[in-house]
Amino acid sequence: MSKKGCCNSVGECFFDYYTSKILVIRSRKVGTLNRFTQALVIAYVVGYVCVLKKGYQDTDTVLSSVTTKVKGIALTNTTELGERIWDVADYIIPPQVVRRFDEEEVQARRFKCPLTSLVPPPSWVMKMIWLHLHAHTLYCVNSLLFTQGLSVQTGRCVNYNDTVKTCEVLSWCPLEKIVEPPNPPLLADAENFTVLIKNNIRYPKFNFNKRNILPNINSSYLTQCVFSRKTDPDCPIFRLKDIVEEAEEDFQTMAVHGGVMGVQIRWDCDLDMPQSWCVPRYTFRRLDNKDPENNVAPGYNFRFAKYYKDSDGTETRTLIKGYGIRFDVLVFGQAGKFNIIPTLLNIGAGLALLGLVNVICDWIVLTIMTRKHHYKEQKYTYVDDFGLVSI
Amino acid sequence: MSKKGCCNSVGECFFDYYTSKILVIRSRKVGTLNRFTQALVIAYVVGYVCVLKKGYQDTDTVLSSVTTKVKGIALTNTTELGERIWDVADYIIPPQVVRRFDEEEVQARRFKCPLTSLVPPPSWVMKMIWLHLHAHTLYCVNSLLFTQGLSVQTGRCVNYNDTVKTCEVLSWCPLEKIVEPPNPPLLADAENFTVLIKNNIRYPKFNFNKRNILPNINSSYLTQCVFSRKTDPDCPIFRLKDIVEEAEEDFQTMAVHGGVMGVQIRWDCDLDMPQSWCVPRYTFRRLDNKDPENNVAPGYNFRFAKYYKDSDGTETRTLIKGYGIRFDVLVFGQAGKFNIIPTLLNIGAGLALLGLVNVICDWIVLTIMTRKHHYKEQKYTYVDDFGLVSI
Amino acid sequence: MSKKGCCNSVGECFFDYYTSKILVIRSRKVGTLNRFTQALVIAYVVGYVCVLKKGYQDTDTVLSSVTTKVKGIALTNTTELGERIWDVADYIIPPQVVRRFDEEEVQARRFKCPLTSLVPPPSWVMKMIWLHLHAHTLYCVNSLLFTQGLSVQTGRCVNYNDTVKTCEVLSWCPLEKIVEPPNPPLLADAENFTVLIKNNIRYPKFNFNKRNILPNINSSYLTQCVFSRKTDPDCPIFRLKDIVEEAEEDFQTMAVHGGVMGVQIRWDCDLDMPQSWCVPRYTFRRLDNKDPENNVAPGYNFRFAKYYKDSDGTETRTLIKGYGIRFDVLVFGQAGKFNIIPTLLNIGAGLALLGLVNVICDWIVLTIMTRKHHYKEQKYTYVDDFGLVSI
Repeated sequence: MSKKGCCNSVGECFFDYYTSKILVIRSRKVGTLNRFTQALVIAYVVGYVCVLKKGYQDTDTVLSSVTTKVKGIALTNTTELGERIWDVADYIIPPQVVRRFDEEEVQARRFKCPLTSLVPPPSWVMKMIWLHLHAHTLYCVNSLLFTQGLSVQTGRCVNYNDTVKTCEVLSWCPLEKIVEPPNPPLLADAENFTVLIKNNIRYPKFNFNKRNILPNINSSYLTQCVFSRKTDPDCPIFRLKDIVEEAEEDFQTMAVHGGVMGVQIRWDCDLDMPQSWCVPRYTFRRLDNKDPENNVAPGYNFRFAKYYKDSDGTETRTLIKGYGIRFDVLVFGQAGKFNIIPTLLNIGAGLALLGLVNVICDWIVLTIMTRKHHYKEQKYTYVDDFGLVSI
Repeated sequence: MSKKGCCNSVGECFFDYYTSKILVIRSRKVGTLNRFTQALVIAYVVGYVCVLKKGYQDTDTVLSSVTTKVKGIALTNTTELGERIWDVADYIIPPQVVRRFDEEEVQARRFKCPLTSLVPPPSWVMKMIWLHLHAHTLYCVNSLLFTQGLSVQTGRCVNYNDTVKTCEVLSWCPLEKIVEPPNPPLLADAENFTVLIKNNIRYPKFNFNKRNILPNINSSYLTQCVFSRKTDPDCPIFRLKDIVEEAEEDFQTMAVHGGVMGVQIRWDCDLDMPQSWCVPRYTFRRLDNKDPENNVAPGYNFRFAKYYKDSDGTETRTLIKGYGIRFDVLVFGQAGKFNIIPTLLNIGAGLALLGLVNVICDWIVLTIMTRKHHYKEQKYTYVDDFGLVSI
Repeated sequence: MSKKGCCNSVGECFFDYYTSKILVIRSRKVGTLNRFTQALVIAYVVGYVCVLKKGYQDTDTVLSSVTTKVKGIALTNTTELGERIWDVADYIIPPQVVRRFDEEEVQARRFKCPLTSLVPPPSWVMKMIWLHLHAHTLYCVNSLLFTQGLSVQTGRCVNYNDTVKTCEVLSWCPLEKIVEPPNPPLLADAENFTVLIKNNIRYPKFNFNKRNILPNINSSYLTQCVFSRKTDPDCPIFRLKDIVEEAEEDFQTMAVHGGVMGVQIRWDCDLDMPQSWCVPRYTFRRLDNKDPENNVAPGYNFRFAKYYKDSDGTETRTLIKGYGIRFDVLVFGQAGKFNIIPTLLNIGAGLALLGLVNVICDWIVLTIMTRKHHYKEQKYTYVDDFGLVSI
């Protein structure tokens, strides 16, 4: 061993430059194959990962706040209610647009009354119960009914009419009538109601805020525009009918039993581009299950009550069962911005794959090609614990 | 330099194939070590990253919409209220299930009345205030009380009764009585109420929608099923009592002061598998802090009022303080689907690690093994600026 | 070919150790450059990726549940309403704090009445309509008005007063007066209201739960603290005025037309650290667009109604238009915890980049340096299909 041969001191070796010895094979076949596969890998990394999938970007998901404002008024004229006006304060129960009402007559609390009907009411839990009831008409099992949202039974049986006996129940009286929702719906005009959706989003990671009312929109336009995919894609005011139709539903049909519509606002933003390119995209789809096969309480309805106190102090209420179309505003999206880490992650992975190319080519050269032995000799030097292995 | 030796033209060289010259060491020791470590790395990449952690998948987070429907009716019989029926319209104030009420007598606005009680009311801000008040009974400091949600003082002192003087306040009269929530709770039966949860999810990136009412469920089953982890894991109808018990709470205890329950729906889906494998998992936990140590306004309660107008036009209200159990439905989850980018990212990283294996083995061969000099000779060729270095 | 030279059996070769032959160049220039670039890469991987960006962590986004409780009472004294008290039950309509009311006189449904005013009302859709109306005063086009939330016209023209004729409309009577919101706002005192925000978060992937009421806070502190960035950064009780001021808005100005405030709670947690380091950070910003340029329905207001029944059974309502400041609580954040996959991903990428360093140095050595030919000779061996290429 000469002094020069190895390192006498670390310092001496530290600045040595180690590079692997290379065998250059002058063969078009291999060469072409090699360049070709390399080209593929590079094309993939540059073209697909970087350009198409924006692999050089760090991403963040959207943070959103929504306010809505409904406009519209409807006139109804029914035998029970007579001519009647519905304005926002009447039909908006946040967060849904109630679309028709079956208004019961005023009820008084704490009266005792006979069950008014023996036909099974429509709602989902009752079905079972009532059938059961038939089997036990005379016992009027308490425990069962108690938990099932119908009414509390006193356990006594009273005359419903001259022929039928029924259970006495403790409830708001008279009992809610079991009626199919009328068709056409009461507030059929609601299809022309408009809703203004104000949406403010934020990408916390990039400290980026934006509104769905774009800067290039002025008030005078907003006062009269209505969203339309073709003509007014940026207008944040939607006609209910349009929303439902875009989801390929029929408004009047849907109105009968109600339903839930999803207003999806997608914010996909490339923050390396001008901010003005980052605009919301609106899509609509129906969220509830309309086919009654595997469904309970189809459509969307709910009960609420207005309470009054009579002059004699008796508390009464007006029970309202509203069949509504609820509009859920779902905001989602992803923003991307250049970031060094994902970039180098992808480049690194690309380089590693380039290494793989060599492995493949080596394998071909040394196993497939006719002159493989010839190449092996040059590429490999064999050594074992006892010295050089003669070739 | 011969023409052949180097490239006279780029084209000539472009298809040369460069492969590094290899020294093959015929040593079981190193060989075994080498293969073993390689095996480890490969096992990790294939087994752990790809199979277990699904490193080949791109992921997306869930987008969700929830509707709920509560069923249940309760009968209460208290001295103040007498026999009384509570149905959905009475006890649902979205989004919570109100579980008991302390109903005040009707209050009239704009009357002047003496403070009815000198004991500190239970609510959190008042505590401090009242103590303060005692110190200043005769001054009845306005500014302080003004901002603290008790009532506005006129600044005058009036007789509360023959013995005690107190501050005159401007408020709805009479003042709300300070009472501990009765135990057992008013609507004890509510534990048998059932809630139907309809959940519609979407993975925007994969354009995948699903409902928690699975296709294989039919209506007749839904009309009677109640969720049970063992027997009915897919039923979307939950008995309140079960929810609370699964969170290891006692319903009746929790009902007294109210609380917030979290109904967690987890959607972890592998979209490379059949869609039918993507099902919701329900778990329940308590969200509010029950231990009173570092807590304010323990439990969950809120006030609301019903407003009446008397025949003489005076506006009165019935103030209701409800102690409720609020049910928050929290939907979360992640969907994964095969995607080429993460796949190659992980493979690339794996290959790079394989390279690391060689470095380690080299180090062992050339520094630890007895015949290291012997190997070095073969592996290294030394050259400096003045030509080959003699070995 | 000697038996030893190549593999007669797989087993024989399997434990051979393949290591590339290395050319060591004793040149300070290249060596230094080489080490330097290597140092750079390592510094980046270790320092930036691992330490700064925590590239070794797997991340999860927050899952959150919020409950709020507002405290405060206000005294108002206006000509229409007289001296009046507003407490929580009066001014809270979830989820917003209503800050001032224009209370209309009681309205009776189903009356016919003349349009009371010819000035355009302030609300956004009406503007257009009324102008239109002027053009058609005598026709009183039905269809147009019908859909625009003003009122339904009978189509007849009646005397508004001795001089002006106007359209008869079917609506709650009298019509809502068109008034600018009074300034200063009615509930000016609301700036001293306080809101308690209870926030419970969860990182599902790490099964980590926490509350914004930190363990080290005790009840007695909570009863009296108010959030302040300097003195009480952990107190979950906020004075409305502070919230608005932190967003650089003026409360009294904002109160006139109302608005939407965002209370942002950021949970950035490093779960490799003690849990006590994982604390919420509160920030505030205004979510609605205050400049009226490209805005409709500036501020935040809404209508709701209280319904009464007169002794004669006529239904009447009190329409209330509330101008409110709505507080949206936006919870976001990211938790990181050590995970082997991202770690190795980054290390792998780093190694691949180290490989890149060699490529660069090789290029320099073999093309720039004066003695490049000298090095080439040693590094490269040329071979073509017909044998060794003489150098």
